[in-house]
Amino acid sequence: MKKNAFYAQSGGVTSVINATAAALILEAKKHKDKIGKIYAGKNGILGALREELIDTSKESITAIESLKSRAGGVFGSCRLKLKDFNENKKEYERLVDVFKAHNIGYFFYNGGNDSADTAYKVSQISNALSYPIKCIAIPKTVDNDLAVTDCCPGFGSAAKYIATSTLEASLDVESMSETSTKVFILEVMGRHAGWMAASSALARTSRNNAPHIILFPEVKFNQQKFLKKIKDVVKKNGYCVIVASEGVKNSKGKFLAESDTKDAFGHTQLGGVAPYLSSLITKKLKLKNHWAVSDYLQRSARHIASRTDLLHAEAVGIHAIKYAIQGLNGVMPVIIRGEGAKYSWKIKPAPLSKIANVEKKLPKAFITKDGFDVNAKAIKYLQPLILGEAYPKFYNGVPKLEQLKLIEVKKKLPEWKF
Amino acid sequence: MKKNAFYAQSGGVTSVINATAAALILEAKKHKDKIGKIYAGKNGILGALREELIDTSKESITAIESLKSRAGGVFGSCRLKLKDFNENKKEYERLVDVFKAHNIGYFFYNGGNDSADTAYKVSQISNALSYPIKCIAIPKTVDNDLAVTDCCPGFGSAAKYIATSTLEASLDVESMSETSTKVFILEVMGRHAGWMAASSALARTSRNNAPHIILFPEVKFNQQKFLKKIKDVVKKNGYCVIVASEGVKNSKGKFLAESDTKDAFGHTQLGGVAPYLSSLITKKLKLKNHWAVSDYLQRSARHIASRTDLLHAEAVGIHAIKYAIQGLNGVMPVIIRGEGAKYSWKIKPAPLSKIANVEKKLPKAFITKDGFDVNAKAIKYLQPLILGEAYPKFYNGVPKLEQLKLIEVKKKLPEWKF
Repeated sequence: MKKNAFYAQSGGVTSVINATAAALILEAKKHKDKIGKIYAGKNGILGALREELIDTSKESITAIESLKSRAGGVFGSCRLKLKDFNENKKEYERLVDVFKAHNIGYFFYNGGNDSADTAYKVSQISNALSYPIKCIAIPKTVDNDLAVTDCCPGFGSAAKYIATSTLEASLDVESMSETSTKVFILEVMGRHAGWMAASSALARTSRNNAPHIILFPEVKFNQQKFLKKIKDVVKKNGYCVIVASEGVKNSKGKFLAESDTKDAFGHTQLGGVAPYLSSLITKKLKLKNHWAVSDYLQRSARHIASRTDLLHAEAVGIHAIKYAIQGLNGVMPVIIRGEGAKYSWKIKPAPLSKIANVEKKLPKAFITKDGFDVNAKAIKYLQPLILGEAYPKFYNGVPKLEQLKLIEVKKKLPEWKF
Repeated sequence: MKKNAFYAQSGGVTSVINATAAALILEAKKHKDKIGKIYAGKNGILGALREELIDTSKESITAIESLKSRAGGVFGSCRLKLKDFNENKKEYERLVDVFKAHNIGYFFYNGGNDSADTAYKVSQISNALSYPIKCIAIPKTVDNDLAVTDCCPGFGSAAKYIATSTLEASLDVESMSETSTKVFILEVMGRHAGWMAASSALARTSRNNAPHIILFPEVKFNQQKFLKKIKDVVKKNGYCVIVASEGVKNSKGKFLAESDTKDAFGHTQLGGVAPYLSSLITKKLKLKNHWAVSDYLQRSARHIASRTDLLHAEAVGIHAIKYAIQGLNGVMPVIIRGEGAKYSWKIKPAPLSKIANVEKKLPKAFITKDGFDVNAKAIKYLQPLILGEAYPKFYNGVPKLEQLKLIEVKKKLPEWKF
């Protein structure tokens, strides 16, 4: 008997996570003999626990297609990591109950490390509870820190946003540097891995030498070297553009953004690497500076998504369906890069056991000796991921949003209490 | 005898100021009988004082055309307001000396209020010094605070960036709000006028009700009302998106970003309205929040420029040339909005005396009674200004930059010392 499928988004969304959902839903429609309905969890795995299942078959094809260019996660997501089976057996039993009640035989979980872990556990435990479910985790994270896969859908678009923003702001600063701002700081995401900060190096071309300094979570912050480098760059270049990862840490392993700066400046910093560095530069170098913090803008900027990233995001959605109907279980469709000089890629299944809870940092081999930049090897890796544009439709001057119905199926079980 | 022209950019650049330069240079080429070469001041008016004149006739048409999609100000700009004639006669005399030496009979000054003032003074003083020059100021400012003109080139693109970013970030926050961020704050430019903050309201559609709160420099910050509004919005909506102008002031008329918050929280704020508000919300409402500061990104984001704004920017450049060869002096080409329901506009000359040093704030009639939003009248004014897209070419995943030669003419005068 054919089974329905449950699809949920997990953790921070990306500008192309809806594209993965759209591709998965549309691919499933091609296999109606094997897969029944796709139920999307309202607010991720919470939707399964609460039996809040959005029936995607009620949406028009136009509405589903429109998701390919919609920022955010239209079905909702959540930050909720399921505890270990032994710690909280009830959660897993509830999941299986909901799956049973709605004849769900496929579990698609679109997220990062934690989600791979959850999907892996569900695949094992559903067997133990004698209601086997095919569990496929689907990669997604702007942090680009998943193991095995060459890159993560969502990262390429964030990287394109960062590279483009760095380039544009650099041109601005350059114009004004003689009489105004000498140093510009852009803070980007990346609590533990410097992939996003590294992508700012793609702003550099034969016509633009910014950014001049990149700060990574992987490199301990050395204040003296940092200030000297700024001085040198401003002297030589007239201005200095800095891209700093939010996760930069001091020599004691503490986040700069959280460090108590009372000793140096007589007050405490409220958070944010950029304002911290700005204050430092003002006090120590007396150079006029400006700072920006991209925060959610960088991971939601669908308007400047990378076409390559969008294609990745769609492909992992399509392959999740393919693997499920092939009977694969406990796997993730990952992106494998071809070996030739020209960028190529394909999708392959990889076992979740190798991906769950593993964090892939920016390799040391990608970082320059002085710790303030990435090298040609990194550029070679990063550049293909931001290639191509994929503009959304606009309406009244802003990205167009189609109406979705988001109709939930009727509940069959008692209410779930945490 | 035909005369050469001097063109300079002044003050903060916009994402379309180069488009004005390109249109002006290309239009001048059509009138070679009247206008000789266009010399662009290196770093604005400084270029005239220092006799650093970039000969734009050395650039290819392709290079000039490419400026229409290049962020920043390619000839450089500066923050330098000429003093009054009586205070610093020498500066004006030097300008006239440089203009004489290079047979310059036209002065085009592309900037805001201050630049209009300078152009106005130069037009009067050159007459007094018996070397009459046709002075045309060309409007440019993301702040949209120039008098007489319906809007200012540069503003529409910044507004489109802000509206798009607000929409995208709102979709992101909405997805995650159940278990994560409840309040998102975007800080935008606008030290004295709330036009840019107001433009975030264009993110609102039938499918998106964010932003929920807008803070303007024109409205005194009321902490109690602000916190209550957030609470209400989060209760009703699940999350709250706030767009705050950098120029928001407290009841004592002090910038929030500069206020000493030691009394309330035991530490001093380093600047930035967004982190200030974030801290306030954390302390008083205990709501998880995130914040972004756009800073230069919003005024340099050529990749998301408004086509309408770009057309305005080009038109004022073209008309500056037209007015000059018609013999007009001490005027600015301004944008006049048509009266019909459908947006239309034309360019007209306006006397600089009416524009110099006047600041046009967001009218009270555009702000809602509670002070946290704009009304339908404001939307009617703002919406046409962000209509249409005008993407740059991309190369290697980022906006393509053409090479410019930027060759300076040979100096004829002794070095200028400040």
